[in-house]
Amino acid sequence: MVEEMTDELTSSLFSTAEMTRIFSPASQLRAMMRFEWALACALESNGVAAAGLGAALEKLLDASFVDQASLREKALDAGNIVIPFLHQLTRKTEETYGSGCCVHLGATSQDVLDTALVLQMREALDVLFRAIDRLDAALSKQVREHAETVLTGRTWLQAGPPTTLGLKLAATLAAIRRHRLRLRAAAERALFLQFGGAVGTLAALGDAGAGVSRTLAEKLELPEPDMPWHTRRDDLVEVAAVLALLTGSLGKFAKDVALLMQPEVGEVSEPLREGRGSSSTMPQKRNPVACATVLACAERVPGLVATLLTAMPQEHERGLGLWQAEWETLPQIFRLTAAALDRSVEIAEGLVVNAAQMLANLKALRGLNMAEAVSIALAQKLGRAPAHEMLRRAAERAHRENCSLREVLKRTPEVTAHLSEDEIDRLMNPRAYLGSSQRFIARVLEAADADR
Amino acid sequence: MVEEMTDELTSSLFSTAEMTRIFSPASQLRAMMRFEWALACALESNGVAAAGLGAALEKLLDASFVDQASLREKALDAGNIVIPFLHQLTRKTEETYGSGCCVHLGATSQDVLDTALVLQMREALDVLFRAIDRLDAALSKQVREHAETVLTGRTWLQAGPPTTLGLKLAATLAAIRRHRLRLRAAAERALFLQFGGAVGTLAALGDAGAGVSRTLAEKLELPEPDMPWHTRRDDLVEVAAVLALLTGSLGKFAKDVALLMQPEVGEVSEPLREGRGSSSTMPQKRNPVACATVLACAERVPGLVATLLTAMPQEHERGLGLWQAEWETLPQIFRLTAAALDRSVEIAEGLVVNAAQMLANLKALRGLNMAEAVSIALAQKLGRAPAHEMLRRAAERAHRENCSLREVLKRTPEVTAHLSEDEIDRLMNPRAYLGSSQRFIARVLEAADADR
Amino acid sequence: MVEEMTDELTSSLFSTAEMTRIFSPASQLRAMMRFEWALACALESNGVAAAGLGAALEKLLDASFVDQASLREKALDAGNIVIPFLHQLTRKTEETYGSGCCVHLGATSQDVLDTALVLQMREALDVLFRAIDRLDAALSKQVREHAETVLTGRTWLQAGPPTTLGLKLAATLAAIRRHRLRLRAAAERALFLQFGGAVGTLAALGDAGAGVSRTLAEKLELPEPDMPWHTRRDDLVEVAAVLALLTGSLGKFAKDVALLMQPEVGEVSEPLREGRGSSSTMPQKRNPVACATVLACAERVPGLVATLLTAMPQEHERGLGLWQAEWETLPQIFRLTAAALDRSVEIAEGLVVNAAQMLANLKALRGLNMAEAVSIALAQKLGRAPAHEMLRRAAERAHRENCSLREVLKRTPEVTAHLSEDEIDRLMNPRAYLGSSQRFIARVLEAADADR
Amino acid sequence: MVEEMTDELTSSLFSTAEMTRIFSPASQLRAMMRFEWALACALESNGVAAAGLGAALEKLLDASFVDQASLREKALDAGNIVIPFLHQLTRKTEETYGSGCCVHLGATSQDVLDTALVLQMREALDVLFRAIDRLDAALSKQVREHAETVLTGRTWLQAGPPTTLGLKLAATLAAIRRHRLRLRAAAERALFLQFGGAVGTLAALGDAGAGVSRTLAEKLELPEPDMPWHTRRDDLVEVAAVLALLTGSLGKFAKDVALLMQPEVGEVSEPLREGRGSSSTMPQKRNPVACATVLACAERVPGLVATLLTAMPQEHERGLGLWQAEWETLPQIFRLTAAALDRSVEIAEGLVVNAAQMLANLKALRGLNMAEAVSIALAQKLGRAPAHEMLRRAAERAHRENCSLREVLKRTPEVTAHLSEDEIDRLMNPRAYLGSSQRFIARVLEAADADR
Repeated sequence: MVEEMTDELTSSLFSTAEMTRIFSPASQLRAMMRFEWALACALESNGVAAAGLGAALEKLLDASFVDQASLREKALDAGNIVIPFLHQLTRKTEETYGSGCCVHLGATSQDVLDTALVLQMREALDVLFRAIDRLDAALSKQVREHAETVLTGRTWLQAGPPTTLGLKLAATLAAIRRHRLRLRAAAERALFLQFGGAVGTLAALGDAGAGVSRTLAEKLELPEPDMPWHTRRDDLVEVAAVLALLTGSLGKFAKDVALLMQPEVGEVSEPLREGRGSSSTMPQKRNPVACATVLACAERVPGLVATLLTAMPQEHERGLGLWQAEWETLPQIFRLTAAALDRSVEIAEGLVVNAAQMLANLKALRGLNMAEAVSIALAQKLGRAPAHEMLRRAAERAHRENCSLREVLKRTPEVTAHLSEDEIDRLMNPRAYLGSSQRFIARVLEAADADR
Repeated sequence: MVEEMTDELTSSLFSTAEMTRIFSPASQLRAMMRFEWALACALESNGVAAAGLGAALEKLLDASFVDQASLREKALDAGNIVIPFLHQLTRKTEETYGSGCCVHLGATSQDVLDTALVLQMREALDVLFRAIDRLDAALSKQVREHAETVLTGRTWLQAGPPTTLGLKLAATLAAIRRHRLRLRAAAERALFLQFGGAVGTLAALGDAGAGVSRTLAEKLELPEPDMPWHTRRDDLVEVAAVLALLTGSLGKFAKDVALLMQPEVGEVSEPLREGRGSSSTMPQKRNPVACATVLACAERVPGLVATLLTAMPQEHERGLGLWQAEWETLPQIFRLTAAALDRSVEIAEGLVVNAAQMLANLKALRGLNMAEAVSIALAQKLGRAPAHEMLRRAAERAHRENCSLREVLKRTPEVTAHLSEDEIDRLMNPRAYLGSSQRFIARVLEAADADR
Repeated sequence: MVEEMTDELTSSLFSTAEMTRIFSPASQLRAMMRFEWALACALESNGVAAAGLGAALEKLLDASFVDQASLREKALDAGNIVIPFLHQLTRKTEETYGSGCCVHLGATSQDVLDTALVLQMREALDVLFRAIDRLDAALSKQVREHAETVLTGRTWLQAGPPTTLGLKLAATLAAIRRHRLRLRAAAERALFLQFGGAVGTLAALGDAGAGVSRTLAEKLELPEPDMPWHTRRDDLVEVAAVLALLTGSLGKFAKDVALLMQPEVGEVSEPLREGRGSSSTMPQKRNPVACATVLACAERVPGLVATLLTAMPQEHERGLGLWQAEWETLPQIFRLTAAALDRSVEIAEGLVVNAAQMLANLKALRGLNMAEAVSIALAQKLGRAPAHEMLRRAAERAHRENCSLREVLKRTPEVTAHLSEDEIDRLMNPRAYLGSSQRFIARVLEAADADR
Repeated sequence: MVEEMTDELTSSLFSTAEMTRIFSPASQLRAMMRFEWALACALESNGVAAAGLGAALEKLLDASFVDQASLREKALDAGNIVIPFLHQLTRKTEETYGSGCCVHLGATSQDVLDTALVLQMREALDVLFRAIDRLDAALSKQVREHAETVLTGRTWLQAGPPTTLGLKLAATLAAIRRHRLRLRAAAERALFLQFGGAVGTLAALGDAGAGVSRTLAEKLELPEPDMPWHTRRDDLVEVAAVLALLTGSLGKFAKDVALLMQPEVGEVSEPLREGRGSSSTMPQKRNPVACATVLACAERVPGLVATLLTAMPQEHERGLGLWQAEWETLPQIFRLTAAALDRSVEIAEGLVVNAAQMLANLKALRGLNMAEAVSIALAQKLGRAPAHEMLRRAAERAHRENCSLREVLKRTPEVTAHLSEDEIDRLMNPRAYLGSSQRFIARVLEAADADR
């Protein structure tokens, strides 16, 4: 019933089709079913359950037998979705196999929910790693291509000496690669079986606990942890935190693009395919909609991560309220991250660069942003502070008289006493004031190659 | 297609059916449609649109013509859902009315989205106010009933002098009433028309702007603001902040109930109707599932409010990324608040009180929590600090010797020099040490009656 | 000992001298002392304490007797600062008055801490209200002065139709006024005595509770609440939430100024007094340092408010950990808000406006931002959608051919069939396309006058 | 001037003396001075500065020449503390060395601030690693000692089957060890030189950039990054995120101790040394003040981390407002983490365990928490669901009749048909129902040993 969906119409903006599927109710039920099937097999092969239960559950792996509406309704009383799910599963197993006797035996609700989540996360992380690889490739290409594309460096939203677009993008590239390493490490710590039974001792299985746990883990191709982690959520929350770091870096990338795309700046543009970014009332509009989405995701993830962090002190062997606060929050973080990554790939792959406008904007600064270059040159003769002060005054005069800094400098005897007109001209050339930019770019690209 | 839903299986826990409906895609589309219809009427009656447009749109008010799947897909390029919605609406109007000419004329996407949100919020707030009234009634009843039900006062999770259950609940009752006042004030500030056109000047309507705006507001029964509020989000965010304050208070209520429901305490219980709160593996379990849900909601709302607060500095006449961050966040806050309120009403209405256990627990403290009473009595004679110190030592001795404080005191000459055995007995009586509790309860109930 | 200060060197940026003083250790101790003095007087006048105690404590009101270093050290064991404070106070009272017998009698640590906080907040709120009044006055002046100063309206960081600087600032002005109302309402709810004794029953005072409480409240000129509010923190947190709303609006104001101050835009500037906003290496730099500070404050407050909101579910009669989480957080919010307000006042009072640049920027848009105006005019003849589409294509052509929209339109027969060249020229005039802007401004100013 | 301190009286609670020192103004100034000295040496050895500058600055390494009051005042105009610091340093260098000419040459303010922060963080991380080691040792000892100390397992704050204190603590131990690994990895990524000059190109140093940077890094014993990271904050924020994960785990540990310390539970206590945890009015009180502090820290850190995450999208080559939002936030996170760790070490080292009370509490459950054991045994014969239902009914009857589950079971023919009285007795024995607990503990301890 459409009417009953809590789903938002904006789902295409704040998720991707793949991620929506991975964390859909149907996928969650399949993942839960997968746990119950693997457990049945493990109970069977360890002699706890009779032969045939695993095969019986294997036929139900698609979870299509589940009546979702009833499950949702019953969840309200149960406090979680596992209990009504098990009622339905047990009934179904009785019908098809004759006995639901050993279904779920030895496990607790959280074992199912957490392991199902881990299975979903494994798939979700694969999707994210692929998107990261695409972003890496797209950015690497742009960095190489625009290594020497000069534009105004900007600090505090004011003009500084020049930099290059390649260097700007190299910083994002380097960050993306660090995030990949972080995410790998976090995934390695988080993708573990959860299996501890009622209070994490596997007591219900007696001596069979070790064996059942081992087989269960093998069936699900998940490693076994040293001990169950019902109320130790650090591994899960670490994944969320890394995703937040990642969306933060993507937000930085998108913000720069959006700022450079302002009509008064006009130096780059996100790709504007037909019909993209139009307005409902302004026919000329080309809104940076991909940037907006990335920024919205980057804005939303931190609050969700704070929720998970605050929810860590979960009571005793199973939390009251704090565990439950995770349920919808973690999938949301995955969806937002996937959306931010996808839009970032689009931007990086199709970035429109207007190098001519970059030069025009540099020129329009009338050399003021090159004041540092001259100041440094004069500092050799006058000392840093007096040179800095001299340039500060020259810059103010250029402002006041609305002329170029070059002109003012050439008219200033204290300057011309130390610098010839040619030297001044050379110092005012942006291309000659790029310092170590090419060296930095090379290092980032090299590290990237080494990393592959 | 179920597969494509982002909806969570836990929707029954973290929303209510009513709130889910109010913020469903269908309701949002109807609210958007309502805006376009009212605008059409306003354009018509102000001579901007030809006669008949309003009537034509009136037939589409249920928004059933909308192809949601297509709308979601197109939203990705448009950056919002209004543009594809308008394409569909214009096409539909052309089919049914002959011309989509003046549909949406003068308005911008944000006018539709914000006003539709306000219409949804108006309905949602009504729901919340009704729930608040029920909670008020239930708590008032419990406060009266348990005004004199004595239980251990607890500070820092340690035992203190006694208090009464009525007083405990009165504090929540008083808070709930403050929240109602806050929410009324916030609603009065937030439930306003949004109508400013492209950049908030209504320029597209020329001289007709004032008239169209007035009629539009009347049609929607919304007041007109002094000026459009596209990038001034304080009124919206205030509503969210008040809902966070409300869920915070509900969280406090639920946490106390859950703590008092611990088996070792056993003084109250949330209502345990058949099938409620069972465990998937522990047959004896009666989990406080309503408390857990309230606590989970109270844990989730603050991070969402922080997102809205951080999203306030929206750029110029329409934000880039920060506005978009609100879209799914605000409805989520409403859903969580509704769920927390509903569960709190259940708890308050059906609270199971075990007054005998309260007395038993008091008794088990062996008088130690009454140390203050004796200390105060002795302070008249010895000074506060020496009396405090004397009782601290007596309490330690009682601890050490595992006997009652009363015994120790009666064996302590420095005490018996000032207090007779009878006086000691009287001082150790919890019922005689309730101070102003009845006065406080009466005041809260009185204020409540005055408030109605 | 400077070495031991946790204070940051950046205190001047993220607080004001006044707010730093109000929430300083010395001020907090004086406020605590004020509580103890008022309590002593109340105990005396209600016959609980012997005559003279109030007078004795009156001499200690400046709290200069307190050994802060010792207090800090002892606080670690006590878990709060009240217990070591009381040890010192009692000893001092014994020395000077002969007996510390009744000092603090009937009160609990939280009574002192909360009431002292309320006293500090009362002073702090006065400071904020004064700053709000100054900001209101400065903004009102600018709104009047620049009611008709035309500049580009900007949505999604792209150009839209024109608006006026007055209208832009009017929106902030209106928000500031709403915040003042909110803050007044919140202050009225929060500035209350806290006095409940150990568990909120005033039991230690027996029948004298009501009288002592009344006198205590009178002495401190604070209203009495219906009942103690030890673990009901909604009133305090509401104040914090309103301050967050306020800094959010200030952040929006500062962000717009900073964006308009970009060298490529250059339409306004925050006041650049001598030495303000310079760089350590770039002599020409004029950094928007006031804007940066406001934005930093707006960025920091939401996380702190989320902490307070999450900390609301405090256990029973005194919280464990959550109450303690408030102690440094709330003062921090006050400091940040005061800093944001002060910098905003500076910006609003000294805003440098470059109206010529605004017009130049409008001109540089080559009429593209006026596409809506023409589209609306054509919509009368062609329908909204075809007109919108025609203008979209014309805009694209102007982009492609790098000429003005006006030229393209005049060369487009489908346009000239409906609009004469004169009409096109008129439609392209920004001053003629300001719609209801003056009406909106007038309404905001009127509402403001009414409000005073 | 005490009056001007923003420092809180609660500094001993929410920091440690060491951490307070490391992030004190004096330490920050010394770290900044260290950067300027190392830069001077690097400029000198690369032939950019004349000989002697390094030696001159070496004499100023203690930063005692800095007039902090003036620096704070000037910071307001400068927007940061580096500019006034450099004014003072340059003047001082002129006085002592004759010329301040090359001081800071090639660097920008952020180079100084970020590198100084990294130097402070290096020291701070050492402190944290030492505390982590102590906590690891203390927990390991307790895990070994209490591996078989049986207590009630608790889920949803309700009683479940038994577990052991060793297993409970092993989970925290394992988490702490994961945090150490995370923190090491994060430290390795974050402890880097920041040196890029005005816009991150080192342009001011021309060809000398590479050499100066290398020498500078060597002098500070910091690695050089691939490129400057002025607006890529992921490495810094990662450290903060890991500290949040750590405090989250500590919060979990403290919450469990506090809950077990409730008088009605009384199973453990934090160490109560003389004078620790007393109350200002209740002589018998022993407040869990260490737990409260840990919980308060765990409550405060997440909001601060959210601030840092939201602040990641910093504009272009230097952020406006978002960078500034980090300045006080990151040190605060270090202080809170240090405090939480220190208190946790205290708790872990001195934990008072009352094993007798644990058994008494288990006994008081009247076997109800053993229902699972019987249910599992019966499931072999009846199937999981019917057995679960049978036990659920037996548990309810025991509740209703206020007798033990054992009695009810022995009186229930459907049970006794399958289980003998002896079998029932055996199933009700907590010691016999600990499942894999010893295996889990052994694994955690083994992993720990391997890790050392």
